[in-house]
Amino acid sequence: MRIPPCIAIVGKSGVGKTTLLEKLLSEAKGRGYRVATVKHDVHGFDVDRPGKDSWRHAQAGAEAVVLSSPEKLALIRKVDHDWAPTEIVQNLLREYDLVLTEGFKQSKLLKIEVHRREVAQDLLCDPKELLAVATDEHLGIEAPQYSLEDAPGLINLLEEKKLLGRAPAEEIGLYINGEFVSLNPWAREVISGALLGMVRTLKGVNHIETLDLTLRTK
Amino acid sequence: MRIPPCIAIVGKSGVGKTTLLEKLLSEAKGRGYRVATVKHDVHGFDVDRPGKDSWRHAQAGAEAVVLSSPEKLALIRKVDHDWAPTEIVQNLLREYDLVLTEGFKQSKLLKIEVHRREVAQDLLCDPKELLAVATDEHLGIEAPQYSLEDAPGLINLLEEKKLLGRAPAEEIGLYINGEFVSLNPWAREVISGALLGMVRTLKGVNHIETLDLTLRTK
Repeated sequence: MRIPPCIAIVGKSGVGKTTLLEKLLSEAKGRGYRVATVKHDVHGFDVDRPGKDSWRHAQAGAEAVVLSSPEKLALIRKVDHDWAPTEIVQNLLREYDLVLTEGFKQSKLLKIEVHRREVAQDLLCDPKELLAVATDEHLGIEAPQYSLEDAPGLINLLEEKKLLGRAPAEEIGLYINGEFVSLNPWAREVISGALLGMVRTLKGVNHIETLDLTLRTK
Repeated sequence: MRIPPCIAIVGKSGVGKTTLLEKLLSEAKGRGYRVATVKHDVHGFDVDRPGKDSWRHAQAGAEAVVLSSPEKLALIRKVDHDWAPTEIVQNLLREYDLVLTEGFKQSKLLKIEVHRREVAQDLLCDPKELLAVATDEHLGIEAPQYSLEDAPGLINLLEEKKLLGRAPAEEIGLYINGEFVSLNPWAREVISGALLGMVRTLKGVNHIETLDLTLRTK
């Protein structure tokens, strides 16, 4: 499975990042895409309340707590470092079509900057780093510019750049030591052919729609 | 990667399931195991507050929201059905050594029932289904019985039954259409040998500690 594209919505404080993100979410959802978001908070967050069972579990030493219900599911887990967005996407959000995030301006993620004249004169990021700018005034830069309302235009851009789109019919995703390894078409065919060939001979395996394999060496 | 064992702590209401679970958590953690818990709540739960960015994301159509901080991480996602504990473990908790859960008395999970004389005379589950009973009185049943305080004894039992233990040095986990496929040692060696052999020839791949591969056919 490919890793979904992760786009960072960046911009100065108060410029309207969450508002643009909401518009992009609605537009992408309306086109049938499944979208996830990532919110980074260096100060931590509280999703749990003292006294609740899940809180008691965490207090007693659970590394992770899952709350499960028929409509939604929550996983709260300890981490030993601040996860990069790509780590989050790869470990938790692989099944979505698009991941949007606020902030992470120092990351190497693809970025859309939100700009409003009344908040600041200049941009937060080097325009060369930007996929696009959502702005209320025309800027003398090369990056494509969209109005603050133009979520359809921005989603079109992601589709045109093939960042967003239906997944191809047969896909293979290979990760070595947690890093995505890009495969040329030949390697892709050799590896998937060999693996499917071996696995199809196993007792009890009939039709294969998805195959997930994990290997841990010493 | 193998799927970690998932043990359900069952028992009538008010019998002390969470208390036993806390003791088991501390004991397992003290022995160096990484433990996760699952809490099922048919009535749903709230981990998010109106007005917060993450709540706005969910309202605008995000299928999943991740909150990330240097110490912990939360994933809140929509589900289209009530996930079974095995589904939760397989998708979200594979990296842990042990998963403990309260409830799920109708599942096929391994179960430890908590019993206290003052709460009820008889057990909730058929004793034949029980891995063990934590009880404050001796019961005339075959399942192994432990005192309510005896978390060390219960964790010993899990270790003796090889449910809990250090993972072997080289492991392979194969899932077809989301179901775990058990491999005999020969198939394990052929598949991991072929795959590692192919992957080692790829440019940029040096030392392989972990390999994760996903395939989606049409």
